[in-house]
Amino acid sequence: MSANSFGNLFRLTSFGESHGKAVGGVIEGILPGLDIDMDFIQHEMNRRRPGQSAITTPRDEKDQVEILSGVFEGKATGTPMGFLVWNSDQKSGDYDNIRNVYRPSHADYTYQTKYGIRDHRGGGRSSARETIARVFAGAIAKLILRREGLTVQAYTSQVGHIQLDKSYQQMDLEVAESNIVRCPDPEVAQQMIDFIDQTRINKDSVGGVITCVIKNVPVGLGEPVFNKLHAQLGHAMLGINAVKGFEYGSGFGAAAMTGMAHNDEFFMDGDRVRTRTNRSGGIQGGISNGEDIYFNVAFKPIATVLKEQQTVNKDGEEVPTVVKGRHDPCVLPRAVPIVEAMAAMVMVDNLYLNKMYR
Amino acid sequence: MSANSFGNLFRLTSFGESHGKAVGGVIEGILPGLDIDMDFIQHEMNRRRPGQSAITTPRDEKDQVEILSGVFEGKATGTPMGFLVWNSDQKSGDYDNIRNVYRPSHADYTYQTKYGIRDHRGGGRSSARETIARVFAGAIAKLILRREGLTVQAYTSQVGHIQLDKSYQQMDLEVAESNIVRCPDPEVAQQMIDFIDQTRINKDSVGGVITCVIKNVPVGLGEPVFNKLHAQLGHAMLGINAVKGFEYGSGFGAAAMTGMAHNDEFFMDGDRVRTRTNRSGGIQGGISNGEDIYFNVAFKPIATVLKEQQTVNKDGEEVPTVVKGRHDPCVLPRAVPIVEAMAAMVMVDNLYLNKMYR
Amino acid sequence: MSANSFGNLFRLTSFGESHGKAVGGVIEGILPGLDIDMDFIQHEMNRRRPGQSAITTPRDEKDQVEILSGVFEGKATGTPMGFLVWNSDQKSGDYDNIRNVYRPSHADYTYQTKYGIRDHRGGGRSSARETIARVFAGAIAKLILRREGLTVQAYTSQVGHIQLDKSYQQMDLEVAESNIVRCPDPEVAQQMIDFIDQTRINKDSVGGVITCVIKNVPVGLGEPVFNKLHAQLGHAMLGINAVKGFEYGSGFGAAAMTGMAHNDEFFMDGDRVRTRTNRSGGIQGGISNGEDIYFNVAFKPIATVLKEQQTVNKDGEEVPTVVKGRHDPCVLPRAVPIVEAMAAMVMVDNLYLNKMYR
Amino acid sequence: MSANSFGNLFRLTSFGESHGKAVGGVIEGILPGLDIDMDFIQHEMNRRRPGQSAITTPRDEKDQVEILSGVFEGKATGTPMGFLVWNSDQKSGDYDNIRNVYRPSHADYTYQTKYGIRDHRGGGRSSARETIARVFAGAIAKLILRREGLTVQAYTSQVGHIQLDKSYQQMDLEVAESNIVRCPDPEVAQQMIDFIDQTRINKDSVGGVITCVIKNVPVGLGEPVFNKLHAQLGHAMLGINAVKGFEYGSGFGAAAMTGMAHNDEFFMDGDRVRTRTNRSGGIQGGISNGEDIYFNVAFKPIATVLKEQQTVNKDGEEVPTVVKGRHDPCVLPRAVPIVEAMAAMVMVDNLYLNKMYR
Repeated sequence: MSANSFGNLFRLTSFGESHGKAVGGVIEGILPGLDIDMDFIQHEMNRRRPGQSAITTPRDEKDQVEILSGVFEGKATGTPMGFLVWNSDQKSGDYDNIRNVYRPSHADYTYQTKYGIRDHRGGGRSSARETIARVFAGAIAKLILRREGLTVQAYTSQVGHIQLDKSYQQMDLEVAESNIVRCPDPEVAQQMIDFIDQTRINKDSVGGVITCVIKNVPVGLGEPVFNKLHAQLGHAMLGINAVKGFEYGSGFGAAAMTGMAHNDEFFMDGDRVRTRTNRSGGIQGGISNGEDIYFNVAFKPIATVLKEQQTVNKDGEEVPTVVKGRHDPCVLPRAVPIVEAMAAMVMVDNLYLNKMYR
Repeated sequence: MSANSFGNLFRLTSFGESHGKAVGGVIEGILPGLDIDMDFIQHEMNRRRPGQSAITTPRDEKDQVEILSGVFEGKATGTPMGFLVWNSDQKSGDYDNIRNVYRPSHADYTYQTKYGIRDHRGGGRSSARETIARVFAGAIAKLILRREGLTVQAYTSQVGHIQLDKSYQQMDLEVAESNIVRCPDPEVAQQMIDFIDQTRINKDSVGGVITCVIKNVPVGLGEPVFNKLHAQLGHAMLGINAVKGFEYGSGFGAAAMTGMAHNDEFFMDGDRVRTRTNRSGGIQGGISNGEDIYFNVAFKPIATVLKEQQTVNKDGEEVPTVVKGRHDPCVLPRAVPIVEAMAAMVMVDNLYLNKMYR
Repeated sequence: MSANSFGNLFRLTSFGESHGKAVGGVIEGILPGLDIDMDFIQHEMNRRRPGQSAITTPRDEKDQVEILSGVFEGKATGTPMGFLVWNSDQKSGDYDNIRNVYRPSHADYTYQTKYGIRDHRGGGRSSARETIARVFAGAIAKLILRREGLTVQAYTSQVGHIQLDKSYQQMDLEVAESNIVRCPDPEVAQQMIDFIDQTRINKDSVGGVITCVIKNVPVGLGEPVFNKLHAQLGHAMLGINAVKGFEYGSGFGAAAMTGMAHNDEFFMDGDRVRTRTNRSGGIQGGISNGEDIYFNVAFKPIATVLKEQQTVNKDGEEVPTVVKGRHDPCVLPRAVPIVEAMAAMVMVDNLYLNKMYR
Repeated sequence: MSANSFGNLFRLTSFGESHGKAVGGVIEGILPGLDIDMDFIQHEMNRRRPGQSAITTPRDEKDQVEILSGVFEGKATGTPMGFLVWNSDQKSGDYDNIRNVYRPSHADYTYQTKYGIRDHRGGGRSSARETIARVFAGAIAKLILRREGLTVQAYTSQVGHIQLDKSYQQMDLEVAESNIVRCPDPEVAQQMIDFIDQTRINKDSVGGVITCVIKNVPVGLGEPVFNKLHAQLGHAMLGINAVKGFEYGSGFGAAAMTGMAHNDEFFMDGDRVRTRTNRSGGIQGGISNGEDIYFNVAFKPIATVLKEQQTVNKDGEEVPTVVKGRHDPCVLPRAVPIVEAMAAMVMVDNLYLNKMYR
């Protein structure tokens, strides 16, 4: 029900907007006794942080997490973990120009109409700053997955018209973290970086696609019929800002296929039942089958562009506007850890849920 | 939490498998006083029913709904509505051949492994027969939407490689119901029908895409951050059998666009704030903006093909199998009312939720 | 959220009113592979059934449960179990006298005002007939508890002014099932029976108290802070018709005690940590401590009395009324299995939830 | 599901333990535009605060709330409100004596066994300090109720054996706030104070009862069947530390009554349907009927007494213990605002839920 909570047994409830005092949340369902590896957590936070490279927004957010509860002597206690990151980067006074203007393809108009009130200083609750809580909770989730051997790894597979044409099996995904666009193919990565840089110079923005792979998944995760594992993953991804589409396994490409071409034949790999192909994307009937789970997430170009656009204001007047503020021409690199975080939370939740049947 | 419930204030809890006694469910949150228009409801049920045409499965299910509670003198009372459809078409005895075999790309293996037990006579809970409950609840939801003026209309926009290249605005969507493939362009419909017929003769199956359009949506529906309106719609669609992808508005196409090309400029249409284009798909920041909501749902070819395939059985032996049973070469036509039903439920739930703010 | 669902991982969603076609529900979270012992289940149903004895309502309901899904070859499959009991005992035509009258201390007025519509033929959704679903789901829950060794046993400890002054440890609780009032002390039972019989002759009704004991509870069940085990039990009991109060362990008596007199000292019973006294009622900090859980549930006399009372009708007129229909002077005996059922469901849900921590 | 969240549409998710950095939470569902009256809120916080008077614990907690999000220019924005109170009063090093000891009737043993780990410095999550979040959220809820005209007022009606024998109608409830025990009868209040003071000198503690009255309730609140209004209130109260029982309206007294004596006759009060008596406690069939809602909450004497007791430690040894730390001989006065807070949250949630039917 709660729109600010995600998950069931492993559950994040988040709060905070771009120009309030802090963003943060509460995480429930952390495995008691879990080592809270702060180095790993801060590393994950830094991956999301703006200002990591020349092609992202220059805003230098510290994103230093403060844990308020739920940990004792470095270990999770099983009680809810409150946490926050202060919003240090608030400047008041320079927002009057956007107080009454609805920026095109932003959430200004819809928030104003739904709630009848709005913090006009930036994106408010719809700001990407809200994703801090997701990445933090995702880092905790990854620590739990690590104990079970699961890995979750995402990378940029498309920026604008530049598409990576290799499948994830054909590349060393670790390479993704070695370049600022987070693409595991160095050559394509450089093309993407150049394209983003040009977009930045053009004061424009560009969309793209993130691919995510989950490995070492036990058979049996997922809760049919309405909470099929991929439905949960899709829900998670579509809740990320700027996401316009989700597909898993064969995805939209499956629409053009026939059953004989699409079906994954089973075979025995020693004692283990496996499939020769994996168009199912590791999920059959909404339940993991032990093969790799992989999916794509489409991002639109973010709405903040620095050129003049036509729009309307609260008084119902048509006015031109030039959106000010920091400019992040392509959010894909920073969205990679967000995709991973959401996926990790889904997987932990389903690991817990599945224990019921044992 | 519950994987067999969908929705919050308007909520369906469903039960039933293909070879049990009945399928059905419980619907909560029906507006008290609502006229339960049984003609309309049965019409919707008939749209989902197998055996409607030569291109779908010949199974002749009656799908006559029996309402057990929640109605008095033809009107909803506000109490939960129990309902069921009897499974008349059960034949026992002829399922021994599939008792131990995991049919490729079916849910046999994953259900067996998750639950340790399985009704092997057909798809069990993963059977499309489960969608009866969805279409019934969707019909009730549509009756509620009708009072508010909203419409939900879906149609087949792709079958195999045959793609409809017109946008929904360029066609009369009512036409979709005049042909058996439910495509609003009669010419393309005929190509699709021919292709499906050939697929049927080939004992194969084929996938496709359904497009859905929701009109007359009030501004303000949707619950950020985790339950953005499109995240709810995506969750709903990805819970339908055989769905592999979801995109709304500009969808995956947005990945290749720039912000200036993608942003929807606002303008005043009389008193009303509107956008000149609608790449946002009627949703901004996860909240409806009053423009049409539209989205695409990708379906894989269903796994039941009548040719020999390789697979394994419960004893870990690799065996050939020929799946028996009725053959539905393309589920798209029958999935159209399911897509509508799920979308209608999401919209009613959000209409209710939004009343909180008044 | 859903007011017709109870529980989280083990979950009942119920439907049905006294004069609809059927009552029933959907149960999720039944352990896959569980033997569905229909004899036991029907035995539990019969304990709730009216017409068991001279002191209860003469209505002879069959309460034969029909299971619609979720079972295969006698075992639970892990899929939701739909079930129903047909309402055979509907007579139409003789309800006109109560169509517009609000019977005192019934739910007629509040339902009519909340929903704007009401099935006036009997109690509708507020009828005790709704508890059929609870007893059925409770029977399933008991089958699960049996595997874990837990027992749930309730008995009548007060009827009107007749109070049983022995604690549950001082009696053989099995005796309760040997008399029609379900009191484990045969002498007090007879007094209660005589009193109820007199009440019946007086065309009046009488309240009472049911005590419930849960044994062999593992340490660690319960989910603080808001879902303490006793808060869940209290919620469950207060949702039963006619319940006015709940207390566990020392209960209201604790208010008059001092800490030194109330605290339960720990001691070692072999390897096991135990308490010498059990004023905590088996729950400390909202979590079971392994001692017996026991609690009391207060029932008001039910509102249906056969004497003339003053009331008002829908037109706002003050009118006298004599409530017709079957007369159940004391619901306590039939409420005993309902109390057990709700308690059993709470315990199963918490057993499941607790597996998360393993 | 979440044990750290309370409510549905108006929802508190809390975190924090006595010896962590902070306690706090997230509130969702605050009416957008609501004036956040910080003076009122802090006044409520101060009512809960220890150290208010000679008869409560001398711990001088500041309990200054810091709001982190959800407010703009003094008004609620509709986005979640994060908040915290720092734990200033942490002293480390002096807890070694209780590291391994299970204090009698505390939650040490059950938490340790459930989670396998525990912050032994004080009560951890089971500490009364957790109720800070409840009182804060309750203050917000009261601000919403104020707009609708509802009032929620609680008072101490029993301390040990000293019972207030007047009903709430016979007193001016405002008087309760004029004395330190929060009893509206000044004479009885003085007896209670004297008794508590003697208990304090005895190094002991004492229980009691709090009565709560909710006025100006609209007809129609409450969600049958499982979430009857009183079941929600009971759930809320039983989740408060040290609560052992809950009764509403006629409560446990109803057990000894007959139907004719218990039923509340309806009459017309002008246009309004009312009842001449109110044994129903303002709730019929789980739905408010417009009369005053009133209920009693029983508190045990808290477990912290300063005398030697027998117990066991983690090593399974029986040992004597003298619990150290501040001593709060009677929590009733401080629990009064907590009872009000929980009741206020329940009422707001139901006000919201009820809007669905309009």
